[in-house]
Parts: sequence; structure tokens; C-alpha cells
Amino acid sequence: MRIAVDAMGSDNNPVPDVAGSVMAAQTFGDTIILVGDQALIETELAKQDTSGLSLEIRSASQVIGMKDTPSVAAREKRDSSMHVGLALVREGAADAFVSAGNTGAILATAMLRQTGLGRIPGVLRPALGVVFPIVTRPMLIDNGANTDCKPEYLLQFGIMGSTYMEHVMGRPQPRVGLISNGEEEGKGNLLIKEAIPLLAESELNYVGNVEPRDFVQGTIDVGVTDGFTGNIMMKTAEAFASYMNSSIRRNLMGNLSTKIGGLLSKPAFARVRAEMDPDEVGGAPLLGVNGVVIIAHGRSNAFAMQQAIGQARRVAEKQVVAAIEESIAKHALRAAQPD
Amino acid sequence: MRIAVDAMGSDNNPVPDVAGSVMAAQTFGDTIILVGDQALIETELAKQDTSGLSLEIRSASQVIGMKDTPSVAAREKRDSSMHVGLALVREGAADAFVSAGNTGAILATAMLRQTGLGRIPGVLRPALGVVFPIVTRPMLIDNGANTDCKPEYLLQFGIMGSTYMEHVMGRPQPRVGLISNGEEEGKGNLLIKEAIPLLAESELNYVGNVEPRDFVQGTIDVGVTDGFTGNIMMKTAEAFASYMNSSIRRNLMGNLSTKIGGLLSKPAFARVRAEMDPDEVGGAPLLGVNGVVIIAHGRSNAFAMQQAIGQARRVAEKQVVAAIEESIAKHALRAAQPD
Repeated sequence: MRIAVDAMGSDNNPVPDVAGSVMAAQTFGDTIILVGDQALIETELAKQDTSGLSLEIRSASQVIGMKDTPSVAAREKRDSSMHVGLALVREGAADAFVSAGNTGAILATAMLRQTGLGRIPGVLRPALGVVFPIVTRPMLIDNGANTDCKPEYLLQFGIMGSTYMEHVMGRPQPRVGLISNGEEEGKGNLLIKEAIPLLAESELNYVGNVEPRDFVQGTIDVGVTDGFTGNIMMKTAEAFASYMNSSIRRNLMGNLSTKIGGLLSKPAFARVRAEMDPDEVGGAPLLGVNGVVIIAHGRSNAFAMQQAIGQARRVAEKQVVAAIEESIAKHALRAAQPD
Repeated sequence: MRIAVDAMGSDNNPVPDVAGSVMAAQTFGDTIILVGDQALIETELAKQDTSGLSLEIRSASQVIGMKDTPSVAAREKRDSSMHVGLALVREGAADAFVSAGNTGAILATAMLRQTGLGRIPGVLRPALGVVFPIVTRPMLIDNGANTDCKPEYLLQFGIMGSTYMEHVMGRPQPRVGLISNGEEEGKGNLLIKEAIPLLAESELNYVGNVEPRDFVQGTIDVGVTDGFTGNIMMKTAEAFASYMNSSIRRNLMGNLSTKIGGLLSKPAFARVRAEMDPDEVGGAPLLGVNGVVIIAHGRSNAFAMQQAIGQARRVAEKQVVAAIEESIAKHALRAAQPD
């Protein structure tokens, strides 16, 4: 396996990006191609014991930052680490690309037809799937690649998410639900109401409209939503988990006995944090582009980068891109048949 | 003050509805008009010490349940406790109406022009405001009354929410934000992008696009959103707060010392729960209808009903309906002026 890693992606690049790549090379034995500023990468590599590891450097002279406008960066920074890394996948020189950089820019660069990956044949819109770090590990798709959607996009998000969960997470017949403001008939906005028959008539294991509670409690494996709602749902979950944490901490400091209680409880809180650590889950797969792309958090540390690289190799190994192409084609064929 | 209360609203009606009304009559000294099945209400009242309280019963022969389709119930159950209670406000026989019943049905019934309240002049769409039970007590509006919105609706949600927060919560110049998937320029779906200039050019204290994190951390007083996104945001917050709770509880049971830690920490957890108790905040005001309507949780207990009634009297006292009419008219006038 050959994985291209954006060395200039994370907020603290290239430190965690390079360190995580070294860890991944050790753990998985794969070849990691570090893409970015050669001198900076070499400096970071010199800090590590890399003997016996298969590490390569591919130089890229430009860096796309978090403040770059995605469409502009994709068009103009043609020698960025993202462009070069994605081109490696395009040319077959790498099996996957991992970046902790600007999500919009990765998406825009991956979509470039001439130099990026373009879409899997039949896919209308690539989408960002995020597996939530909760016990039941459900996927929410889309998480922000498409702020305005058509019902057909939602159907394809369901197909892509379902294919991913089956092949990568080993869940047979993943249960797919449309995230809505209620389960009852007649609930949902216009988009959801128009998407319902498409999912209901598809070959997906569609279980109906579901509420956020169902997503959290494990009623479904794949929650389908437009990228605006999905992004807000993900960020609301993060914001309230964080709020709960600080609220508990503040109240534990209220008096001596709860302070002691808090000290004794520390290992339990550490386990809660570990369980909900997004790094454990890896990065977010960009599904629907014609190649394996995993987007890690901007604030990824070396461990998070290693996990994202591990996920990238699993997605490549399980041939998810080919499986999505097949699922989409199968659906199109089935939809074209008379009843 | 005369408050009409739907005795048949809550999931356990009429028990908490009547008990909460008695508590409110004691606490506030107002006249409470209990609307619903006379015999059932009398049975419940007989269980309470009501001496010296001003309690009236207004009979209504029909009940709208949680499973009723709102539009059908509004059209057909003309002698429901909702219809009768709202008519009391319409006729000036009550200053406010409180119900823990079917939200959609309350909205549809309140909107009836002939027998309900109709809209405040100039209001395009009434909306459901919810003050979140977190430390900074921000309002999210709309929470589900309007699943599909136009930019002009969002502007009015901002005006109505801002007016409420100023008059009822005593916040001068409430900070208003549009809930979006990012703060940067160019973020948002089409609806948000079209709403931005409307809010930016209005007389509101508009602070820009905000993310759920900002809503939680107290950057804004009013978060404006369409009712679909708002409802999902609210339900996601509830679902993750509940998930965090059970995750912590499960992990505390992991070994003896954390079990003891958990026991010692109990008062702190109780304080966290009390702080985040939605009952403390009261019900959700239905803003934009031509009269004071407060919608309480279906699972309200007597305390929650009392709080919702207390909120209703405050909203009536502060003349929020007149203030919204004035704000909306002022805005229309300002928008009509040449620059």
C-alpha cells in the first residue's frame, strides 16, 4: 500500500503530519509519501527514527491554508501539497490521500477534472461522511460538502454511506435513516419529503425518518442529511458535549466532598473522553470522488494522523471506490427498469 | 392577570396541568381559567387546597392529542380545549394561553383567522422561540413552526426574538446571529446567504454568522434559524446531553473507586441537571401570533406548568405582542425609506 500524506495540512504542520506518518509506516508497514516543503519535511524526519521504514518525500512548493478560499486555492495554487498529493492518487502512484487541511479546498481540488480525481461515474455530488465517536459509531453524511441539496443527492449520500459502512465498518445491510424533525408522516422540510420516496423505493435498508435521538441511540447506521444541517448537527453535538464537560467540572468544584468525588471519578471521565475521542474514529472519508481521500481534523496530533492513515489504507484495501461505483450503477439500472 | 390554561394538554393530562395551575394561582395570585373536560378538572381540583385562589373552569368537549394531525384537528375539533382557550385570549377574556399539547395543533389553531388569534399585523410567519437551559440562556428561533423558510422570515424571527429577549429577559440590544456552518464569508446555505444582507441592514444588533459553539458559549442572545434546522439543533443538543449523562454513569460504574467517586459527586450531578432543567426556563413562546401563547413540553409536570404560566404572565405584562407589532412596523417603515 502506498499512502500520500499532506505534510502541510494540519494547524501545526508539518510536525504532527510527519510524526503521524512515521508512526503509520511503523504500524502498518506501508509506504508513506510525504507531500510538501522538502526542507521542512526533512527537518521533521531527522527528529525521528526512520530506519527500516518506507518513507518518501514528494516536493510541493505551495501551501493551502485554513484561510484560503477553497475555489480560488484550487484554481491557483497548482503546486500545493493538496494538488500534488491528489495527483499521485490520480496517476496511480498512491492508493490514497490523507490531509488535515482546509476541507473545502481539499474538496475543490479533488473535484478538478484535469488534475484532481473528479467524481466516480454516476455520482452527482461527493459528500463528507463522518463516523461519530459514540458507542454505536453511526455515520452522518453529508457533513458540509453540499450546503444546498436536491433529493437525488440525498439518495446517493445514502448509497455511498451504506456502501462505506458495509465494506469498511463490516455492517451487513446498514440501516439508513433520513434525519428529520420528527418520525411521523408529514414531518420534514420539502427536501426531506421529496427524498423519502427515493430512499423508500431504493435497494437501501431504509428505516424511515429519524430524529437526532435515534441517530445517537443506535437505531440507524447511516444518517442522511444535507451538508448544512449535517454540519450544524455535528457542531451542535460537539458544542454540547463540551458544554456538559465544563458544566460538570464547574459543579464538581462546588464543595469539598464533590471535589473528592471528582478526583476519584477522574479515571471514569478519562474513559468517557477516550470513548468520545474523534481521533479514535479516524478522519472523514470524502465519498464520491474517484479515489480514496481522508480528511483529518485541522487540530490533529500525530496519533490522529496515524489513525487517519490507517483508515485510508482500510478504505483503499476494501476497494470502497469501486464498490460505490457499482452501487450507484446498480441503482441507476434498477431505477431505469419498468416495474 | 387572567391566564387560560389547557387542562387537556400534557401527556398526563389533566393531572399536572391542573396541579400546576393551582400552584401558579398560589404563587402569582392571578386568575387561572382551566379549559377542558369539566368533570375531570373538578376531580383534580378536589384533590387540592384551592381556598382563596382565583380558579375558573371553562368547559371544552373535545381534546386534541399528540397523534392528531394539526391541520385536521384545527379545522375539525372546534370545541377542543385549544380552540376554547385561544378564543378566550382572542375575546380579551384572558391575557394569555398556556398549553402542553400538540405543538403543531396549537400553532394551526392559533393561526385560524375566524376563531383563533391570527398573525400580528405585518408578521409573515409566527415562530417558536426556545430559550435553551444553559448558563447564558440564549434563544433559538424558529424551533419547528416553519420547516421551509424565506430570507424575510428569518429577518422577522430575528426581530421577534430580539424583542422578546429585550422585554422579557431584560437584555438591552440583544446580539442576534444567523446559525450557520461557519463564520467566514461565503459560508451558509442559499437561505442564510440571502438572509445575511437583510439582517445586516436591519436595526438589529446583528453580529454575523455564528456556529453552534457560539450559541452555546454566549456570543449571542438570539440564534436565528429555519424551523427544520432549529428543531434538529435542539434535538441534537438534548440527545447528546443525555448521551453524555449515560456515558458518564456507565463509566463511573467501571470500578469501586470511581463508583465511590460517583456517589460523592452526586450533588454536583444534581446541580448540573437542575441547571439544565428545561422546566426552569418555562415553555416556548409562539411569537408572531396576535396574543400571548406559551407552549410547554408534553411531558411537563406540575412545576413545569407553573413555570410556563409564570412566563405567560410575564410576556403579557411586558406587552410583548404590542412590542413585536411595533418592531415589525418600524422595520417596514425603515426599509421603505430611501437611503
